Amino acid sequence: MQEHISSDFHQDLNIFQSLQRASQIWSQKVALEAPLHCPELKLTYAQAAERCSALAASLAERFVPGDRIACLMPNCYVYFDLYYAAAAAGLVLVPINFRLSAREIAHILMDSDSRVLFVHDDFADLARVVMQRLAGQIQKLPELISVGEGYEPVITSSANAEWQAVKTSANDLAQIYYTSGTTGNPKGVMLTHLNVHANAMAAAQEMSMTDRERWGHVAPLFHLVDAWAVFAVTMAGGTHIFAPYFKAQEMHGILASGVTNLALVPTMVATCLDLLQGDYPDLHTIMTAGSPMAPQLVKRLEETLGCRYVQFYGMTETSPFLTLSLETETDKQSTYEHRLATRCRTGRSITGVTLDVVDAEGNSVPRDDKTIGEVIARGLNISPGYWRNPQATNEAIRQGWIYTGDLAVINENGSINIVDRKKDMIITGGENVFSCEVEHVLLEHPSILECAVYGIPDEKWGERVQASIVLKPDAESLSEREVMDFVRDRLARYKAPRVVEFLSELPKTGSGKIRKKELRDRFWR
Amino acid sequence: MQEHISSDFHQDLNIFQSLQRASQIWSQKVALEAPLHCPELKLTYAQAAERCSALAASLAERFVPGDRIACLMPNCYVYFDLYYAAAAAGLVLVPINFRLSAREIAHILMDSDSRVLFVHDDFADLARVVMQRLAGQIQKLPELISVGEGYEPVITSSANAEWQAVKTSANDLAQIYYTSGTTGNPKGVMLTHLNVHANAMAAAQEMSMTDRERWGHVAPLFHLVDAWAVFAVTMAGGTHIFAPYFKAQEMHGILASGVTNLALVPTMVATCLDLLQGDYPDLHTIMTAGSPMAPQLVKRLEETLGCRYVQFYGMTETSPFLTLSLETETDKQSTYEHRLATRCRTGRSITGVTLDVVDAEGNSVPRDDKTIGEVIARGLNISPGYWRNPQATNEAIRQGWIYTGDLAVINENGSINIVDRKKDMIITGGENVFSCEVEHVLLEHPSILECAVYGIPDEKWGERVQASIVLKPDAESLSEREVMDFVRDRLARYKAPRVVEFLSELPKTGSGKIRKKELRDRFWR
Repeated sequence: MQEHISSDFHQDLNIFQSLQRASQIWSQKVALEAPLHCPELKLTYAQAAERCSALAASLAERFVPGDRIACLMPNCYVYFDLYYAAAAAGLVLVPINFRLSAREIAHILMDSDSRVLFVHDDFADLARVVMQRLAGQIQKLPELISVGEGYEPVITSSANAEWQAVKTSANDLAQIYYTSGTTGNPKGVMLTHLNVHANAMAAAQEMSMTDRERWGHVAPLFHLVDAWAVFAVTMAGGTHIFAPYFKAQEMHGILASGVTNLALVPTMVATCLDLLQGDYPDLHTIMTAGSPMAPQLVKRLEETLGCRYVQFYGMTETSPFLTLSLETETDKQSTYEHRLATRCRTGRSITGVTLDVVDAEGNSVPRDDKTIGEVIARGLNISPGYWRNPQATNEAIRQGWIYTGDLAVINENGSINIVDRKKDMIITGGENVFSCEVEHVLLEHPSILECAVYGIPDEKWGERVQASIVLKPDAESLSEREVMDFVRDRLARYKAPRVVEFLSELPKTGSGKIRKKELRDRFWR
Repeated sequence: MQEHISSDFHQDLNIFQSLQRASQIWSQKVALEAPLHCPELKLTYAQAAERCSALAASLAERFVPGDRIACLMPNCYVYFDLYYAAAAAGLVLVPINFRLSAREIAHILMDSDSRVLFVHDDFADLARVVMQRLAGQIQKLPELISVGEGYEPVITSSANAEWQAVKTSANDLAQIYYTSGTTGNPKGVMLTHLNVHANAMAAAQEMSMTDRERWGHVAPLFHLVDAWAVFAVTMAGGTHIFAPYFKAQEMHGILASGVTNLALVPTMVATCLDLLQGDYPDLHTIMTAGSPMAPQLVKRLEETLGCRYVQFYGMTETSPFLTLSLETETDKQSTYEHRLATRCRTGRSITGVTLDVVDAEGNSVPRDDKTIGEVIARGLNISPGYWRNPQATNEAIRQGWIYTGDLAVINENGSINIVDRKKDMIITGGENVFSCEVEHVLLEHPSILECAVYGIPDEKWGERVQASIVLKPDAESLSEREVMDFVRDRLARYKAPRVVEFLSELPKTGSGKIRKKELRDRFWR
């Protein structure tokens, strides 16, 4: 079928081109700001592109295209620099979660074979421990470059004004993100220039982004909950507002500075909503991802802040967008309750993504909003796979479709609702129990702070339902029986935990997800 | 650099996937309408996708992936069917300009080696003549399928409900458009699935398209002035409104039916504006491409219709968008005159396109809105080249950049203005004369209907400026001297024609462009 195109044809693409374009159209417009933490910082798109070019030229002197460079930083304009400069130099950026342990970070640096680690001063100590760990294990340690003191010299070391961005093809790698690893060591998810570009373009289109946007980069930029917005906002010519860390008490100041939209995780919303009551006329959209938001919380969010709410769902492997809970023209003519319920769903596929919910044989489940299947998807934003891990790649991506491992229902408008992770589903006496459903009921109990529901071995039933529970600090104690009865009053009997344990805390990953596998594995060894 | 991705990795993409997605999200929404010409037609997205699947299954029984299938039709829902069904079956659609001569159409069918020609009844006679021409030249004639009588059976002939769309990669061909050929035979421009998809996504984003759109397909669908909108509107979940041919007297009815936006060529606007004075509350945007629009005409358009105007520029080789005359946030704070002038420019690069204006050595010209250079561009929407014509491909596309052959200036906001085709520039006594500039002045003369300005050989000056002029039917006669003086009063003396000829008509291509080469070649033989 390819007789007409020469066999060495590669579609050329580099995500840095979007920044070059922005610097042409919006040259004098402010691209980068940090109003709360660095009020004097105001870089225009022309300046931002120039900085990135200079940094890229400097990187290109030290490294060869395809090399990995890692970073350990809070949100700041240097993150923006590195995302684009790495791309322009043909390098692969490895953004590292700063909440990970030294052991995990060392693993990432070794696995990705990163040549350098950009470290913000806030993590200098952590980086030192990481290097000590690595010293015994590899011959050539990654170079440490301190962001703050050492960073500016790197940028200005290259006097080569004629330097041109490295030519990359659409399928060349732009970034590797390590997934938080609720099971085993983190795996590197490879994202190509095309993945990142296609996701950003679809997001900018669906969210109707224009150069009016002032995007608040509040969620950490090492994670795709927010990092995608770097690329989408630049495409639209909007302004990037940086806050180094999410802090509930800073949110008022950030919103008051004229931020128009944000992407957060639901816990961030919950923790800051009490502190926000101002009038934020510029704010128009808050998006969340990572887990469902209760309709009551969405309602409160929209009423308190006077903005619209959009839920999105995806994963690192999908750059990250798979769905958005946008309303159709028809939804908009419906009742408030229907519309709110639509906005609180996982959502329908984003432009360019083909999505399906399939049974074990790979057949589409009925679109009855009841039958449960696994979410699969294809599109330009789907990762080509895991870094140096073809086995994991072949398990996750088959015939161009990514198998998300998420179980969901789908309605007649193609809108899905996630019910559980596939591997967290419990089969007891032939019945399927979705751990999330039980957890949601448990979290309604006024004394319960956190919980995890999972299956443990049972000779008669195959598995039985167990719950690990953390009580609120000031809560009265609860008995196992009270917990069981609470669930039985609200769900089918077989879904109620048969064993309840009370813990002072639950094991978590660096990005804050509960390590359910660790809890479960105690019983399966 | 590709060690991490297996060498046979191809990004999977098929433009049909967007229609499948629309049929999932907007299943019961009307996708296709023809309110003036077929009021009973109202196909939902579910029905449209089903029709296309059935047609694709039927095509897949007859042809193998990569085969070309051609069509000769006015705008209608069958065009929509064919665009998507060809893609789903892995076939390459060759939409043919019905204004071409039988000779040109025969050339296209032979050159593309098309296996079938879908012919609308309106062009049955033309197709017969084409087949007679071909009969003597090729052994296996393309099959003729009549659209109207013969078409429905093709759709329903396949009983295979389990048929799955053919898997294509992003760089596989989706369409071949033959360029109108102001020089020699038409050349086939190859567009990949990625080209078409990327262009549509960028257009949908920049034009902020949503599922509220009711797009009027009025300009012919064999040409990219409008055909791109098929893909963008489906992505956004809008409704497609078809009118078989552009007719000025039908435009009121089309706009009154609730059309929200249209893409036209400037002559269409000029011919219908007198007939439009109604109130069209749904209409929000009219776009034009193909040639500049005078500010007076844009002003009249916006005032008469109460909608916004956007100019776009591109070529078949770029799927077609290179620029849009959208205003930035800063422009919007400016005076009416500045804003109008911005909208009347050729415009700045669309999302995903990197654009430059370069001198003969390939260096960027200053962004002073004065220095003239050639427009070059790169992006996912750039064609991989010309069908079976590597020489033409290598001339047009170098190092991933397409050389448009258009001369332009660029301002400090990256907005360009086309001044002429490169090959139409005249060099006389060492001075550059841009034929368009002289033509624009000539067209201001109340007696002149059409004109073409070009260079003819001159022993002393190299070239001298000549004008071929057609007078308006009711105009008083003009002398050569009067024409020269009219230009000299308005432009530098060396730009004025030294020879003027009056003709009753100018030679034109099938798509209505003046064949300037034919006029010029009389003197250069």
